[in-house]
Amino acid sequence: MCGLAVQDVRAGDALLEQGTVLGPRQAAILAATGYPSVKARPRPRVVVVSTGSELREPGEPLGFDSVYDANSFALAAAARQADAIAYRVGIVSDDPQELTDTLSDQLVRADLVVTSGGVSKGDYDVVKDVLGRLGTVEFAEVAMQPGKPQGFGTVGEDDTPIFTLPGNPVSSYVSFEVFVLPAIRRMMGKLPYRRPLVRATCMAGFGSPRGRTQYVRGDFEVTARGAQVRPVGGHGSHLIGSLSQSNCLIVVPEATTAVEAGSIVDVAVLDRNF
Amino acid sequence: MCGLAVQDVRAGDALLEQGTVLGPRQAAILAATGYPSVKARPRPRVVVVSTGSELREPGEPLGFDSVYDANSFALAAAARQADAIAYRVGIVSDDPQELTDTLSDQLVRADLVVTSGGVSKGDYDVVKDVLGRLGTVEFAEVAMQPGKPQGFGTVGEDDTPIFTLPGNPVSSYVSFEVFVLPAIRRMMGKLPYRRPLVRATCMAGFGSPRGRTQYVRGDFEVTARGAQVRPVGGHGSHLIGSLSQSNCLIVVPEATTAVEAGSIVDVAVLDRNF
Repeated sequence: MCGLAVQDVRAGDALLEQGTVLGPRQAAILAATGYPSVKARPRPRVVVVSTGSELREPGEPLGFDSVYDANSFALAAAARQADAIAYRVGIVSDDPQELTDTLSDQLVRADLVVTSGGVSKGDYDVVKDVLGRLGTVEFAEVAMQPGKPQGFGTVGEDDTPIFTLPGNPVSSYVSFEVFVLPAIRRMMGKLPYRRPLVRATCMAGFGSPRGRTQYVRGDFEVTARGAQVRPVGGHGSHLIGSLSQSNCLIVVPEATTAVEAGSIVDVAVLDRNF
Repeated sequence: MCGLAVQDVRAGDALLEQGTVLGPRQAAILAATGYPSVKARPRPRVVVVSTGSELREPGEPLGFDSVYDANSFALAAAARQADAIAYRVGIVSDDPQELTDTLSDQLVRADLVVTSGGVSKGDYDVVKDVLGRLGTVEFAEVAMQPGKPQGFGTVGEDDTPIFTLPGNPVSSYVSFEVFVLPAIRRMMGKLPYRRPLVRATCMAGFGSPRGRTQYVRGDFEVTARGAQVRPVGGHGSHLIGSLSQSNCLIVVPEATTAVEAGSIVDVAVLDRNF
């Protein structure tokens, strides 16, 4: 199969190792040696659903008891940033039948389903209600902040994996980073599954709850004096403004109750500019 | 426009700075504050054409005087990796009319055109012939290795920018990195335009031509002892096998004629895994 242009490859050579991501240089060697196609893991199709009767599409009129749906836009964009194919289904109300029908409709094109909302304690929680009855999705409280209420399991004939993330915008985004991103990368055969953590000097102190891993929005930059990070905004999981101002998450271990200014912290840098 | 969920944003606050890439966190704040759409720079549409009557599609029979087209696959993949929308037109022969017709057909969907081949001295060079007559594309020899023969200008009614890259697979890929990637990023409003260089210890010595910037394929890794890079394969611009084994380019300045083992070099790390 060896073309004239490929003088540094011999018959029997392995062209690419298993698990290699097919980028431009890999496409070059495959084409140059005459492969019209190769078996590869496709980009997973991720269906994103926001649940909650209080949600409105951006641009619609907003009542005193309603909010705009931000999660489905953010989670679909996050899935795309992870190189998946994202389908934003948008808003599903708290009607159990509507959620059941939507999931049923969407499973035909889903390799993975991500919902947000409807998994807390207290108010009526449609996701817990509908999926809890199936017995294939487990709901639990996870020792993290934000993002405590989580669910994971499978749905449908093909046992399609589903993540049910909390409804608060920051919680759902952080939950995507912690749980969904590694799943997407694993489905694509990409290593490492998790975003590698970077060590940086924390430029301001803050407290952290004992017994829960805390993910703090931060502003990360590499300076002449090394990598630095500054916490951004408050800690409320509803504070979406500070999320958009941040470019990283500071990961504070369970046992840590206070991070002092000048100490070294682990940082997940979120923006992949190159 | 401020929804209930956005307690850390006030009327009059700037939500995002000009030039911000719209990722998941930016989508979140825009949706949460009720924006159904915003003005943004679209992903540029990049049309990729390989020229040369000797080229064959991978999988086709290969004669003694033909080679498989690798460039259009590699350049289209490189454009996609840069977040552009890539259209691989594929192979155009050395017939001037075929190239003229192809460009004319493609310009309707192109924000940028990238060709490879047909720009050297010596043999008949169709790209130089066809585009040279228009007077809007300049052909020159650039003080770099690989990638000496280059052309750039505009074509068509809309003055669509066109890069005419050399035909050798490694030359065309390196030329894309040096010239086309910054153009795509500039069209998208992304900063920095060029891939930032990383400093690394070079683990083996090699020679470099005086008066030309050399781009050497390398294997880059970050070890406990710091960033290290090892040159990969030979220097011939036809050595596509070593290109697929590399993950970076070592950039050797014009004035340098030898890089010694253990010295510090500048490296463009090509793989964007996160």
